[in-house]
Amino acid sequence: MKIAIAQLNPIIGDIENNAENIYSVAKIAVEKKAQLLLTPELSLCGYPPKDLLLNASFVKNTWTQLQELAKKLPGNLAILVGTVTENPHAYREGEKSLFNSIVLIENQAIKKIFHKRLLPTYDVFDEDRYFEPGKESNFFQLCSNDSNSKSIKIGVTVCEDLWNDEEFWGKRNYETNPIQDLVKNGVDLVVNLSASPYSIGKQKIREAMLKYTANRYQVPVIYTNQVGGNDDLIFDGNSFAVNKNGEISLRAKGFQTAIEVIEYDQKSQDLQTSYVANFIETEEEEIWSALVLGLKDYAYKCGFSKAILGLSGGIDSSLVTAIAAEALGTENVLGILMPSPYSSTHSISDAEALVNNLGINSHTLAIGDVMKAYDSVLSPLFKGTEFGVAEENLQSRIRGNLLMAVANKFGHLLLSTGNKSEMAVGYCTLYGDMNGGLAVISDVPKTRVFSLCKWLNRHQEVIPHNVLIKPPSAELKPDQVDEDSLPSYDILDGILDRLIHRHQSIKEIEAAGFDYNIICKVVKLVTRAEFKRKQAPPGLKVSDRAFGTGWRMPIASRWKLD
Amino acid sequence: MKIAIAQLNPIIGDIENNAENIYSVAKIAVEKKAQLLLTPELSLCGYPPKDLLLNASFVKNTWTQLQELAKKLPGNLAILVGTVTENPHAYREGEKSLFNSIVLIENQAIKKIFHKRLLPTYDVFDEDRYFEPGKESNFFQLCSNDSNSKSIKIGVTVCEDLWNDEEFWGKRNYETNPIQDLVKNGVDLVVNLSASPYSIGKQKIREAMLKYTANRYQVPVIYTNQVGGNDDLIFDGNSFAVNKNGEISLRAKGFQTAIEVIEYDQKSQDLQTSYVANFIETEEEEIWSALVLGLKDYAYKCGFSKAILGLSGGIDSSLVTAIAAEALGTENVLGILMPSPYSSTHSISDAEALVNNLGINSHTLAIGDVMKAYDSVLSPLFKGTEFGVAEENLQSRIRGNLLMAVANKFGHLLLSTGNKSEMAVGYCTLYGDMNGGLAVISDVPKTRVFSLCKWLNRHQEVIPHNVLIKPPSAELKPDQVDEDSLPSYDILDGILDRLIHRHQSIKEIEAAGFDYNIICKVVKLVTRAEFKRKQAPPGLKVSDRAFGTGWRMPIASRWKLD
Repeated sequence: MKIAIAQLNPIIGDIENNAENIYSVAKIAVEKKAQLLLTPELSLCGYPPKDLLLNASFVKNTWTQLQELAKKLPGNLAILVGTVTENPHAYREGEKSLFNSIVLIENQAIKKIFHKRLLPTYDVFDEDRYFEPGKESNFFQLCSNDSNSKSIKIGVTVCEDLWNDEEFWGKRNYETNPIQDLVKNGVDLVVNLSASPYSIGKQKIREAMLKYTANRYQVPVIYTNQVGGNDDLIFDGNSFAVNKNGEISLRAKGFQTAIEVIEYDQKSQDLQTSYVANFIETEEEEIWSALVLGLKDYAYKCGFSKAILGLSGGIDSSLVTAIAAEALGTENVLGILMPSPYSSTHSISDAEALVNNLGINSHTLAIGDVMKAYDSVLSPLFKGTEFGVAEENLQSRIRGNLLMAVANKFGHLLLSTGNKSEMAVGYCTLYGDMNGGLAVISDVPKTRVFSLCKWLNRHQEVIPHNVLIKPPSAELKPDQVDEDSLPSYDILDGILDRLIHRHQSIKEIEAAGFDYNIICKVVKLVTRAEFKRKQAPPGLKVSDRAFGTGWRMPIASRWKLD
Repeated sequence: MKIAIAQLNPIIGDIENNAENIYSVAKIAVEKKAQLLLTPELSLCGYPPKDLLLNASFVKNTWTQLQELAKKLPGNLAILVGTVTENPHAYREGEKSLFNSIVLIENQAIKKIFHKRLLPTYDVFDEDRYFEPGKESNFFQLCSNDSNSKSIKIGVTVCEDLWNDEEFWGKRNYETNPIQDLVKNGVDLVVNLSASPYSIGKQKIREAMLKYTANRYQVPVIYTNQVGGNDDLIFDGNSFAVNKNGEISLRAKGFQTAIEVIEYDQKSQDLQTSYVANFIETEEEEIWSALVLGLKDYAYKCGFSKAILGLSGGIDSSLVTAIAAEALGTENVLGILMPSPYSSTHSISDAEALVNNLGINSHTLAIGDVMKAYDSVLSPLFKGTEFGVAEENLQSRIRGNLLMAVANKFGHLLLSTGNKSEMAVGYCTLYGDMNGGLAVISDVPKTRVFSLCKWLNRHQEVIPHNVLIKPPSAELKPDQVDEDSLPSYDILDGILDRLIHRHQSIKEIEAAGFDYNIICKVVKLVTRAEFKRKQAPPGLKVSDRAFGTGWRMPIASRWKLD
């Protein structure tokens, strides 16, 4: 019995087109002789729909589209479609008004509706905000088209439903474990429909977890994931299947749409090995693929075809330019060089080398005269004060204005180029270099920016060599380098990792071998920069703790980490 | 038996000082012969602590401070302190790791811990993200100091615990109703410890609800609320009590800290009437008080004593200036006039009149020369294009840069002055007039800005008369007025209210008498402006649906409202 897996890239809220895409893959699935088609979680409206769910007409419209879709789907194919459904008992029982559901369509009719049971409400997830958890075990019988075969019993799980194997995690994440219920009910196969966002190394965890679970319960599992970028989140796809011994029997390519088919063999009661894409070897390749997809989809889904960014000759803007060239095409990237009297010669020559290496368009807008104009307006107020942060920021903001002027004039998407280390300690200018519609590498620490560039240069020079070896500098005053104000990036990133990703205390970080005073300085900078991060553009998430939707910190707070 | 109510204004995470404040009010409570002191929800760490709760050391430190506090509190006073506590069964049972708790301290020891049962997870609330709901009915016996009196049984509820009277609401909001349990357990009195943020008319709802509940169950209720601004949220205090017949027997003044005492009479088994502050009569006075407190606390809690803002001579900046003068003192407000060649004469004279009316400091920075400098840098790129949005935005961004330069130079807090109608339709410039540490009136629609200014002028002219009567204009090109691009504000605000606050569809709004094409235009503008709102400063929340923490919309989305 053949089962098709559709790794789809929906646009949030574009219900009609998402339905059309499901229809298209259903036809392909039939051609491939599949009897069941799996689509990702909320495949009809896209994940995450967020507060669109608060509109009654959104929910109603989704349901109408689902009914339309059901009518035209091939009759000889069973399909699981992810969608939102209403909870009829909400008001009477004091429950949430919606379910995160999977609808089984068979013979052009809605046959069964399953509700997601475990609702994530951590990091970027807010599912308790909208949904009531399902209470029932979700399974159905799939009859074979082949009269010689029996029907099989399929357990349906939605994303988080499978993330509660207390043996694998060493603790319970939720009170119930849906797969245990399904196994008790004697299912032959478990399918999981997911919208699981990418983070570094996550696919390794997913596969390890499902191998463990499949083997533990001796049940094969097929995992179907959404693919594509939605604002800060990048869904990596990487759909896969494990047989009952916990061996990988299918893996779709990551970071692209895909449709794959796998055979459930009735005799062995197990999955047969199908297409198994290579596992992406390096974290650099993973992150690169994620960022390219994230930028590409943000631009496309927001209606932009061209991007613009400032080229400082530094490593951050160089990396973002390379990502943009890959995502949008070199002809669609415009780099703007904006030298000031404080700019080094290499800031120009390195930026020009990058432009040549990539073959993008560029333009130079010198900012000296605008600086002078501001200085003369401000001089009566600033009389007697020293050159300082106000003047440094002003240069960055002049550049930010020029970039926005060009972006507005030609309808380009402005990309901001700050990295995670800068965003963490506030070594960036609000309304200056932070300007942009998308912060492409704001979840990538500086040390990783270096390793990504080195990886990118593995076959030939993409990022100019000099960019990789010169000391990072904002060049906002003469002879400035980042390490005047910050610890070296190795040390800074080490502290930030412990502080941000591992929630460690100063004492714990000190015990890992870092200097107490440096830690305290970093902690202070991170806390103070909260107001800047509050106003940052969406930044592509590649870590398990990004400064975005899942980072919810008070600004006016006075907690002192100890 | 006397009970004291402490309407406290904690700083988020400033545990040591918050504890010190609780200690101070405990001494006052003893002087006033109270036997029980009530403090707000999470009074020890402040509400909402948000992701600070994810730090183990934050939770541990809070607990340590609580124990220190217990030791020094007066022995003859029982105290209910709001704090976070650990859930020891979290990992075993798959529960959330924390509780939102109330700790009963008696005779300098922790006697009992109660857990909040109903956890709000809508609008700005994320309590399911951190907390496990309490499952038990929360009550304790309070022994009288007077040997002639009996002890009384007190039911403890935390904020949301009381917001589930299915008769009052006409529906259940949660499955359980804590007050029903308490009444079954025979409590004599219910106390509610809250951190309930302000929105227009909310106190009316709170009082109506608790009058209904008290009367329904024939049990008196004392409601203690947090006061003060925390980022976008303004807590209004307005603590009050209702006797068992549902009559108001105490009301503390709103928008300020307070300590009040009320007598529980053992004979009548009811509360005796105590101090009842006047109910604030007009919505304008309410909103004004909220915005003044919100701005004052944001500045204070972030460490600013002075504010700066741009004065355009328009009604929005005029209102924000008046709020800032009231919140921080006239001597601490610096208004900057930034005329351009497109500025009208009245834009200067009206701003000057405002400066004179309020007695604040001001300075003029003409932007014409800076505009010319940008024009000449951009002219090679912009050759052959028409004057348009790029050029309009540039002026706004020059002003934004100048304001930030002055703010950075002197350490002032920049206030942004955009109203909710503008923020909704994107009639504002990102990195321009949207610049600021706090958006003071970004939750106040334009029509309400007018009514607030008229209210402010009720005794004498604060906002210059001409500001109130001239047509609103951004003055970014010759003879521009807002109504060139937008419907009249009466119509716009009517549509926005239905769209944003009532989640209505286009059909429903049309049925209310608005023009179909205008509605469609507004819907489109609101959807498109999502990327701007994403990067807006925190805005003081005064409505039940603000563009802030509680507004979670996708940017790259294509839903079409119908």
